[in-house]
Amino acid sequence: MARIGIIGSEGRMGQAIAQVLAEGEHECAGGVDKGQNPAQLAQECDALVDFSAPVALAENLSAAQAAGIPMLIGTTGLGEREHGAIDAAARSIPILQTGNTSLGVTLLAHLVHEAAARLGPDWDIEVLEMHHRMKVDAPSGTALLLGEAAADARGIALADNSESGRDGHTGQRAKGAIGFAALRGGTVAGEHSVIFAGEQERITLSHSAENRMIFARGAVKGAAWLIGMAPGRYGMKDVLGLA
Amino acid sequence: MARIGIIGSEGRMGQAIAQVLAEGEHECAGGVDKGQNPAQLAQECDALVDFSAPVALAENLSAAQAAGIPMLIGTTGLGEREHGAIDAAARSIPILQTGNTSLGVTLLAHLVHEAAARLGPDWDIEVLEMHHRMKVDAPSGTALLLGEAAADARGIALADNSESGRDGHTGQRAKGAIGFAALRGGTVAGEHSVIFAGEQERITLSHSAENRMIFARGAVKGAAWLIGMAPGRYGMKDVLGLA
Amino acid sequence: MARIGIIGSEGRMGQAIAQVLAEGEHECAGGVDKGQNPAQLAQECDALVDFSAPVALAENLSAAQAAGIPMLIGTTGLGEREHGAIDAAARSIPILQTGNTSLGVTLLAHLVHEAAARLGPDWDIEVLEMHHRMKVDAPSGTALLLGEAAADARGIALADNSESGRDGHTGQRAKGAIGFAALRGGTVAGEHSVIFAGEQERITLSHSAENRMIFARGAVKGAAWLIGMAPGRYGMKDVLGLA
Amino acid sequence: MARIGIIGSEGRMGQAIAQVLAEGEHECAGGVDKGQNPAQLAQECDALVDFSAPVALAENLSAAQAAGIPMLIGTTGLGEREHGAIDAAARSIPILQTGNTSLGVTLLAHLVHEAAARLGPDWDIEVLEMHHRMKVDAPSGTALLLGEAAADARGIALADNSESGRDGHTGQRAKGAIGFAALRGGTVAGEHSVIFAGEQERITLSHSAENRMIFARGAVKGAAWLIGMAPGRYGMKDVLGLA
Repeated sequence: MARIGIIGSEGRMGQAIAQVLAEGEHECAGGVDKGQNPAQLAQECDALVDFSAPVALAENLSAAQAAGIPMLIGTTGLGEREHGAIDAAARSIPILQTGNTSLGVTLLAHLVHEAAARLGPDWDIEVLEMHHRMKVDAPSGTALLLGEAAADARGIALADNSESGRDGHTGQRAKGAIGFAALRGGTVAGEHSVIFAGEQERITLSHSAENRMIFARGAVKGAAWLIGMAPGRYGMKDVLGLA
Repeated sequence: MARIGIIGSEGRMGQAIAQVLAEGEHECAGGVDKGQNPAQLAQECDALVDFSAPVALAENLSAAQAAGIPMLIGTTGLGEREHGAIDAAARSIPILQTGNTSLGVTLLAHLVHEAAARLGPDWDIEVLEMHHRMKVDAPSGTALLLGEAAADARGIALADNSESGRDGHTGQRAKGAIGFAALRGGTVAGEHSVIFAGEQERITLSHSAENRMIFARGAVKGAAWLIGMAPGRYGMKDVLGLA
Repeated sequence: MARIGIIGSEGRMGQAIAQVLAEGEHECAGGVDKGQNPAQLAQECDALVDFSAPVALAENLSAAQAAGIPMLIGTTGLGEREHGAIDAAARSIPILQTGNTSLGVTLLAHLVHEAAARLGPDWDIEVLEMHHRMKVDAPSGTALLLGEAAADARGIALADNSESGRDGHTGQRAKGAIGFAALRGGTVAGEHSVIFAGEQERITLSHSAENRMIFARGAVKGAAWLIGMAPGRYGMKDVLGLA
Repeated sequence: MARIGIIGSEGRMGQAIAQVLAEGEHECAGGVDKGQNPAQLAQECDALVDFSAPVALAENLSAAQAAGIPMLIGTTGLGEREHGAIDAAARSIPILQTGNTSLGVTLLAHLVHEAAARLGPDWDIEVLEMHHRMKVDAPSGTALLLGEAAADARGIALADNSESGRDGHTGQRAKGAIGFAALRGGTVAGEHSVIFAGEQERITLSHSAENRMIFARGAVKGAAWLIGMAPGRYGMKDVLGLA
């Protein structure tokens, strides 16, 4: 059982993580939010999770380093400066930084990479996603992550090979393209499918989330996994033993 | 057992219909193509199917009327003039004109209408389709037909309420919108799904075609069904007893 | 806005209904549980929902009748005696008794009936369901309800025409059979598909629940719908205008 | 372009392979069937495919060895004796023996193995398949092959851990079980899904065949791939670079 401290405890993810800890095998060692110093919290726990803001990152990293404990960073909007700070801190403590803490999505991206690498360009790749009616952009970040996995396996740049938002006279599908389509409606938490369509056969690799708690659950798994690891930078792939 | 005559016998649909007749309960009474007069053929059969060209329609209708037999018209690209000619001929013989001879799609459109009429506008409607990599337009004609069924049931105009080709910053889904998304790849003959996404539940109504023979099979069923009917204009819905 | 009273307020459904009322347009007028008399509660609300036990039914009906308000009954395990009591009470108040309060499932059953009635017996019908790993029986009650809808439309008895639990040497599918298959795993709240498989085409009608709150939501909708209706017995179909 | 010779040329697979060769990049060097000696054919081609009968295997292997060309063996019903003969011949020529020549299914089995190895036993595994109404056994051979891949990855024996044909009071799903469910209907060529159901998320890996030509296509690909390989025994995995 690990004691996990939450930075950004009042945010949606912070609260979800507290709920996962309350129900699961690990323990919540406390939380801090905007304006509060995480140094004391760091001394009382085995790992930190940070879902706060880029502006707080430097202080959070210092707290983790001072306590000599690992930190999982799920904060979004990180720039070059923040990544530099993470690299520096990762020389003394283990750090897992990621934009997507779902273990299922992490595995799916790996399987997509594997499939795209094995199947030749005769197999057309399409990425389909569905999300709730409030989502304001398309394709989803996860859909792009899956498309990147496929593009990487094929040694092509996604930006030069994507077909998104088909509507009207599109012409035939471009050979080697990676297509995207977005459905919106209801309260769907998130569904993603990557379709490999070949000559008279198809392979479809899908992930479906019942709700957003899976991200909190993955964050807790990731933080617990970091405990005892060597200093360095890690990703969710490492938690699954994929790297 | 009915004797069916094929107008447009060398075209893709004409050949598929000949194959269905060769394997099925009805009989092929012969076929004519471009430049050939259907009058003689009409005398030798119980019903005609016409998958030729708008320019040949007047002569084809005359042949059917002279023989006093019904005709199923699947020719595409009909304009006002052709529809007028059909209306006139339908005063003396039964005619079924349709842009989609699949019985499965016809039933699906009916179910979509029924569902859209019963579920309030809190249920978001999305139409998803997948077709082979050679298809040059999106959404498919069948997808639009399904969207029209939903719009009709809600008493709204599809043109004013459709969201197609989502890409980039789309904003939240518009209340009452009917969304469309298109997948392309491989040799997929045609798959369509209409999704009704409500509060934490979803209803999905789908049709999947293994190949394009289903259109030929539906055309034969429709032509055989016309035999013995009263003069008038019919649709595929009537064949299923839906009208 | 209606005031809804909950009988069986401590049960899983009772609590879910209280949550729906707390978040929605209607109001919770209070609740009673085992050993408590619902007479006073009935006086203070516009409709009752009863998810308690068969043994409490007589007292609950009396309370509703005395107050002259409608009641939705979702209690399971009702026998002949209870149905007699409901029939008697329904002469003076409107009563909706049902084993499944989901509006989505109710609509799906209607669509399945419609499809089975239109498609001939050449179309094979299969019912697939998936539920969480704790479920102890198969097929699910909802799967059977959907199978019954199909059998009813075809004018056959489900008991004489079902194929369930295929395993080993099964022989060819029996003509006219209605097949059932059950998947179990994870935390799946409930997914049901009815597949109509014809010659080279398929129609699939599906319902998917994100969680069990949809049953509470449907119960509230049903209870509110009952207010102002004439005395009599109703079903969820009536709420959708399907009967 | 390779010249492929077909042993068992009158069988369903033999004919399908001839059709694939007629339409594709490789060439049909001819075929032999029951009672005909393949020695001459072997001299005139670059590779042999054998979809005949176990009784003919020895003669077929001799013909390939005499000509010094590779052979793909898709004949079913091989016993210990036949496998011994293959092993012996594989010392001088490359041989690919397999019960399933679909490249898509081969890749799917690999992905299932990968997923099962990465996801812990908290993820329940279910295998779903659908086939046409004439199929007489369940689960399909491919479903079992996929279940074996999952069991192998988990280090368990499938025979001791499978749940098939759920019907009636089944009790809760056994921890670590691999479940199977079979749908039958219409003309479905073959669909397989392996579902990994975890806490509030699911990963589904699927393969769908439009028709049985994919097996002939895979056989041709496999035979062409063998040309120029070192003597030895190979599987379809090797064709995809997976072994």
